[in-house]
Amino acid sequence: DIMEKIITLLVPEKDLSGLTVIVTAGPTVEPIDPVRYLSNRSSGKMGYAMACAAARRGARVILISGPTSLKPPHGVELIRVETALQMYDAVMEHFPGADVVVKSAAVADYRPKAVSPQKIKKHGRDLTIELEKNPDILAELGRRKKHQILVGFAAETEELETNARQKLESKNLDLLVANDVTQPGAGFGSDTNIARLVYPGGRTVPLPKMDKLLLAHRILDEVQALRKVQQ
Amino acid sequence: DIMEKIITLLVPEKDLSGLTVIVTAGPTVEPIDPVRYLSNRSSGKMGYAMACAAARRGARVILISGPTSLKPPHGVELIRVETALQMYDAVMEHFPGADVVVKSAAVADYRPKAVSPQKIKKHGRDLTIELEKNPDILAELGRRKKHQILVGFAAETEELETNARQKLESKNLDLLVANDVTQPGAGFGSDTNIARLVYPGGRTVPLPKMDKLLLAHRILDEVQALRKVQQ
Repeated sequence: DIMEKIITLLVPEKDLSGLTVIVTAGPTVEPIDPVRYLSNRSSGKMGYAMACAAARRGARVILISGPTSLKPPHGVELIRVETALQMYDAVMEHFPGADVVVKSAAVADYRPKAVSPQKIKKHGRDLTIELEKNPDILAELGRRKKHQILVGFAAETEELETNARQKLESKNLDLLVANDVTQPGAGFGSDTNIARLVYPGGRTVPLPKMDKLLLAHRILDEVQALRKVQQ
Repeated sequence: DIMEKIITLLVPEKDLSGLTVIVTAGPTVEPIDPVRYLSNRSSGKMGYAMACAAARRGARVILISGPTSLKPPHGVELIRVETALQMYDAVMEHFPGADVVVKSAAVADYRPKAVSPQKIKKHGRDLTIELEKNPDILAELGRRKKHQILVGFAAETEELETNARQKLESKNLDLLVANDVTQPGAGFGSDTNIARLVYPGGRTVPLPKMDKLLLAHRILDEVQALRKVQQ
């Protein structure tokens, strides 16, 4: 679209050439039975914008995406997954060869303990679904990481900065992009985002409301800065 | 699209002029917290095809739709809802003035008992979601119906005919469209459907795989036949 063309004019360099960037995007879908599922309101827009921006800047991009209605950006390798377990497997498979991982997917923390092979018939007034924890992909990447730059996202509805800071540290991230999804113009489904960049050691940079593609480029600028510090 | 144009040529009459048709479509979304929800795999395609067909045939169409990525058909009144309770309210509001109700939505049978106003933080290995039953819209319409023709859908994964017959009778329907969503080319997300028409008294008519818009017209033919018997 026109916004993408304008932004591409502003960021013309192929400064990520030779790098492999994994981007995860979208929600995961956790089946309860063949018809019903648990999911979340992630549209995938932020992740697809990250993949688009990284590809324009010359990176090899592996986009690992949960179900979305978005068109995959030109020139990225798309791996479609549905559940958190499938996303875990796909990310771990490609992680050793990656230089940068941007984890913008909203992965379900929990999945139903038992998936019914048949549609559950309704019976009785109440029903209880037992859930068990999904593996924490970001925390596992934080444990495994060597040279990789690890960028996480935090969608919060309260105590944004405290929660974000804790997530950054507990998961050994290099950068966390925090946003309060309750604000208009921020978060799920929106074309814009209002983010706060959170760095190890406590520095935070609040950003104004901006187009998700522009924010994606801003995040990649930060990734480049982090890579230079590392070298 | 081209299929719609061809089918419109085949069914040119405005034989539903003067009638008000309510069509429900899509899934419902039942929030767990501001981010997470329970839903199901309904794409809304069958319901949107029903609304499109009824509008082409001259009916006033009120399309009550859960979240879908579909473009609403030209000339229908669209009411967007999210939860089963919202769909219940919208359907009951318009039911007294309706002549035909086609209930193609896949309404969640259960909703979370408590909706957390804040995003639930993960803690502990397991989690239990307590659900309570949503009102049964179709059964309530069956109780309230006077002159209205009531068409229901049943998406089944096993014992198609037994389950369909029981649904038809317990809900006082005039026609039930049953389909086995496990078959390729049938059910959720597909552009085609493989349906079986089930009538009160036990008659069933299996239909071949067909485009959902063509099936929609076939169902409206049946509705017209039922209206003539009634008069």
